[in-house]
Amino acid sequence: MTATLAEIAAVCDAELRGDPADEITNVASLHNAAPGDLTFYANKRYRADLETTRASAVMLAATDVPACPTASLVTEDPYLAYAKAARFLNPAPEFAPGVHPTAVIEANADIAADCFIGANTVVGCNAVIGARTYIGPGCVVEAGVKIGSHCHIHSRATLMERVEIGMRVLIHPGVVIGADGYGIANDSGRWLKIPQLGNVMIGDDVEIGANTTIDRGAIENTVIEAGVKIDNQVQIGHNVRVGEHTAIAGGAVVAGSTKIGRRCMIGGASAIAGHIEIADDVVLTGMSGVSNSITQAGVYSSGVPITDNMTWRRNMVRFRRLDELARRVAAMEKLIE
Amino acid sequence: MTATLAEIAAVCDAELRGDPADEITNVASLHNAAPGDLTFYANKRYRADLETTRASAVMLAATDVPACPTASLVTEDPYLAYAKAARFLNPAPEFAPGVHPTAVIEANADIAADCFIGANTVVGCNAVIGARTYIGPGCVVEAGVKIGSHCHIHSRATLMERVEIGMRVLIHPGVVIGADGYGIANDSGRWLKIPQLGNVMIGDDVEIGANTTIDRGAIENTVIEAGVKIDNQVQIGHNVRVGEHTAIAGGAVVAGSTKIGRRCMIGGASAIAGHIEIADDVVLTGMSGVSNSITQAGVYSSGVPITDNMTWRRNMVRFRRLDELARRVAAMEKLIE
Amino acid sequence: MTATLAEIAAVCDAELRGDPADEITNVASLHNAAPGDLTFYANKRYRADLETTRASAVMLAATDVPACPTASLVTEDPYLAYAKAARFLNPAPEFAPGVHPTAVIEANADIAADCFIGANTVVGCNAVIGARTYIGPGCVVEAGVKIGSHCHIHSRATLMERVEIGMRVLIHPGVVIGADGYGIANDSGRWLKIPQLGNVMIGDDVEIGANTTIDRGAIENTVIEAGVKIDNQVQIGHNVRVGEHTAIAGGAVVAGSTKIGRRCMIGGASAIAGHIEIADDVVLTGMSGVSNSITQAGVYSSGVPITDNMTWRRNMVRFRRLDELARRVAAMEKLIE
Repeated sequence: MTATLAEIAAVCDAELRGDPADEITNVASLHNAAPGDLTFYANKRYRADLETTRASAVMLAATDVPACPTASLVTEDPYLAYAKAARFLNPAPEFAPGVHPTAVIEANADIAADCFIGANTVVGCNAVIGARTYIGPGCVVEAGVKIGSHCHIHSRATLMERVEIGMRVLIHPGVVIGADGYGIANDSGRWLKIPQLGNVMIGDDVEIGANTTIDRGAIENTVIEAGVKIDNQVQIGHNVRVGEHTAIAGGAVVAGSTKIGRRCMIGGASAIAGHIEIADDVVLTGMSGVSNSITQAGVYSSGVPITDNMTWRRNMVRFRRLDELARRVAAMEKLIE
Repeated sequence: MTATLAEIAAVCDAELRGDPADEITNVASLHNAAPGDLTFYANKRYRADLETTRASAVMLAATDVPACPTASLVTEDPYLAYAKAARFLNPAPEFAPGVHPTAVIEANADIAADCFIGANTVVGCNAVIGARTYIGPGCVVEAGVKIGSHCHIHSRATLMERVEIGMRVLIHPGVVIGADGYGIANDSGRWLKIPQLGNVMIGDDVEIGANTTIDRGAIENTVIEAGVKIDNQVQIGHNVRVGEHTAIAGGAVVAGSTKIGRRCMIGGASAIAGHIEIADDVVLTGMSGVSNSITQAGVYSSGVPITDNMTWRRNMVRFRRLDELARRVAAMEKLIE
Repeated sequence: MTATLAEIAAVCDAELRGDPADEITNVASLHNAAPGDLTFYANKRYRADLETTRASAVMLAATDVPACPTASLVTEDPYLAYAKAARFLNPAPEFAPGVHPTAVIEANADIAADCFIGANTVVGCNAVIGARTYIGPGCVVEAGVKIGSHCHIHSRATLMERVEIGMRVLIHPGVVIGADGYGIANDSGRWLKIPQLGNVMIGDDVEIGANTTIDRGAIENTVIEAGVKIDNQVQIGHNVRVGEHTAIAGGAVVAGSTKIGRRCMIGGASAIAGHIEIADDVVLTGMSGVSNSITQAGVYSSGVPITDNMTWRRNMVRFRRLDELARRVAAMEKLIE
C-alpha cells in the first residue's frame, strides 16, 4: 500500500524532516532503494550506502541526519521504526475461510467457522482450533491438540497429541512440536525407553522457525512462554522452560530440563546443557557452549576465534598442555621471588 | 492404570519400605507429585524437592531413605527403576489395524494385515511392511523399502527407496532416511555429483528423533546397529556405522565414513569428522569436536567454557598467540636455568 | 549397466593398464569389491584394502600402481575419475510424466507436459514448473513459485510463495525454502516481527540436502548462486548470498546478511555470524566459528581439540585466566630483562 511520510512518521513515532505529503510505496535496503521507497540506517557497516541512497526517505538517528541525502525520519531506534513502517506498509494478507476438500478432519474436531485448513492437512479427534486460525497444506494436527485464535501454521508442521498452542502463534514449515523427549535409561548396556508423559505448552505471540523441534515433557511439560521468538533448526529438549520474550537464533540446541529466563538472547548454534538455569536478560553470543547455570544478567561468550589453519594447529598443541604451561609459569614466579 | 506398591516393587526389582497395598496411579516429578503418584530421586540438584514431596512413594538409593518423607522403593539405580515403573503404568496404546482411505498404496506393496497406514501416507511399489507396524499420516515410504514388525513411524517421515528398517524401530516426525549422501568431486572448480548407490540399514530397537537425517551410503551402506538411540536434529552422513546401543544426543553431526563403536554416548551438538573411528564405550560431553580417531574408551571433551564477554575477548587475543606465549615461557625457563 | 575398461578409461580420461575388453558392471569400495567391480584409491587410510582388493580394476595415481594387484586406471585425481565412472555406470533413472491423481493443482499453475507431480503434492496458484522436472510426493509448492527445467525435488519439500529455482536443481526431502527470515525488533522488551518481503533465488545446478532451510530475504533476496552444493540440516539466514560453486557441509549455520564467496568449502557444523563477508576460495575446517569477515583465501580453523575429560577440565580452569597468565609472563619478562 501507499502512505505519506506524515502517516509513517506518526506510525513510527519519528520526527519528519521532509515533505509530509511525499508518498511512500514500500520499504527497501539503503543500497537498492529507489524513489518511492523508505529505508533505514542502523548499522555503521552500511555508511557508504546511506550517503548514496536513492530512497525517498531514511529512518535514522539524529546524529546521522547530516549524512543523509534525502528526507529523514529521526528516531532513537531506526530498526524498530523500520519494523513498524514495514508492518504498516505490508499488512498480513487476508485469507478466505474454508476447509480444503482433501483435508482429513477426524471425529469431534472443533474447528472455528472462520479458519482455513489446507490441502492434505490432517486434524485428529477432539482437536480444537480457534477463530481466524490458518493451517497450511500438509500439516498433521494430532488428537486433542488445542490451537488458539489468530494462529498461522504454515505447511507441513506436526503438532503431536494434546499439544497446546496459544493465540497469534506463528509456526513455519517442517516444525515438530510434542515428539517424545530423549528419555532413556541404561539397563545393563541396553537403553530402555522412558514413556514421555508430559505435554508442550506454547504461549501467545510465539514464533517458531522452519524445521525446529520442541519435545514434549517427560513427566512435567515443556513450556515456551509468551512472546518467545525461535529461529530455524532449533532443538528444545523435554521439560525445558523458555521465559517470556526470549529470542533463540538458528541451530541452537537446548538440552532437557533446563530453564532459560526472560528476555534472553541465545546466539545461533549455541548449545546449552541440561538441568541448568539461565537467568533473565542473559545474552549468549553465537556458538556459545553453556555447561553450568548462569545466575547473573550479562553478555557471555565461549569458543575460540578463527585463525589460519597453520597458526591454529600450533596453538592447539599448546592448548592441550595449557595446564602444564600455567604450572611452569607459577614455578618460575616462585623461583624469581 | 493403577498398581500396588508391591506390584511396582516387583516390576522394578526394588525393595519396598511402605505399605505393599498402597495404590499408585501414575508417575510424577518430585516437585509436582500428589498422593497417588510415584516419583524418583536420582539427581542431587533436586534434594529440596525430595524432602518436601507429596508423592505416595519415591524410588531412591538406600543412602537417601532418611531424607524421604514417604514410602520408599530402594534400588541401586532409581532412574532405571523409574523407567520400568513408568512403562508398567503407561503401556503403549493399542491401535486398530487399517489403511486410511486417503493413503496411496502403489503396486505390489506388501503390507501385513494388522498394520495401520495413516492419512495421506504414500507407500511405494514393492515396499514390505511387517506385522503390527504403525505408520502415521503424511509419511513417504519409497519403492522397495522394507520395514520390520512392530515398528512405529510417526507422521511425515520419509524413507527413501530400498531402505531397510528392523523390528520395533521408533521413528519420529520429519525424519529422512536414505537421502543421498554428500558426495561431490571437484572438476576444475565445479562440483560433480557422485551417485549415491549404497543403502541404509537400521537395526532392531533403534529410535530416531524428530527431523533427524540419515544418508544412504555412497557405495557401501550406512548402518545403524541394534539398540541405537538417536535424538532430534542429528545428521548422520553416508557410509557411517553406529555400533550397538550407542546414544547420540540432539543436534550432533557425524560426517561420512566414520565408524562409532558400541555403547558410546555422543553429547548433544557434537561434531565428528569423517573417515575416523571412535572406540567402544567412548563418552563425548556436549558440543565436542572430534577430528581424529579415538582409540580408547573413556570420557572426552573439547570446547572452552563460557565467560563474561569482556573476559572472553581478552582471552581470545591471548589465545591467538598461545604458541608464542608458550615459546616465551620456554625461553625464560632456559634463561633462568 | 555394463561397460568395458576401454570405455571407462575414455569417460574418465584415465590411462588404462589392463585388458581394454574387460567388463565392469558397477563400482564398489576397495574392501567390498568383487570381480566385475571398479573401485578407486584416493585416501591413504585405505592402503591395506588396496593391496588386497578383489576388484577388476582400480582408479589411482601413477605412484600407487605398484601396490595395485589388478588392472589400473591411472589418473591425477582418482576421486574425480571415480565420480565420472560411477555416473557413467549409473545414469539417472528416467521417469514417466504425469500428475498423480491425488496431487492438488491450484488455478493457473503452469506445469510442463513432461513433468511428474507426485501423490499428495500441492502446487499453488500461478506456479510455473519447467520441462522434465520431477516433484515427488508430499511437497508443497506455494503460489507463484518458479521452478526451472530438469529439476528433481524429492518428497516433502516446501517452496514458499514466489521462490525461484533454476535448472537442474536437486532438492532432498524435508527442505524448506523461503520461510520467513528471523527478523525481529525489540519494542520495550517485546519482539515485533518484521515482515520478510524479499525472495529466494536458487541458481542452476544447485543441490540442497535433506531438512536444510533457506530463509527468504527481509527486503533484498537470499541468493544461492549456480553450482552451490549444500548438505543436510544446514540453515541459511535471510539476505545471505552464497557464491558460485561453494560447498557447505552438514549442520552449518549461516546467519543473516552474510556474503560467502565463490568456491568456498564450509566445514560441517560451522557457524558464521551475520553481516560479514567471506572471500572467494576460503576453506573452513569442521566446526569453525566465524565472527568477523575473512578477506583472504586460505584454510581457517577454530575450536579446541578433544582431550580426555580430566585434562580438559584442568585446561579449562587455566583458559578462563589466560589473559592473566599472559600478563604474568610479560611481567616476568620485564623483571628478567
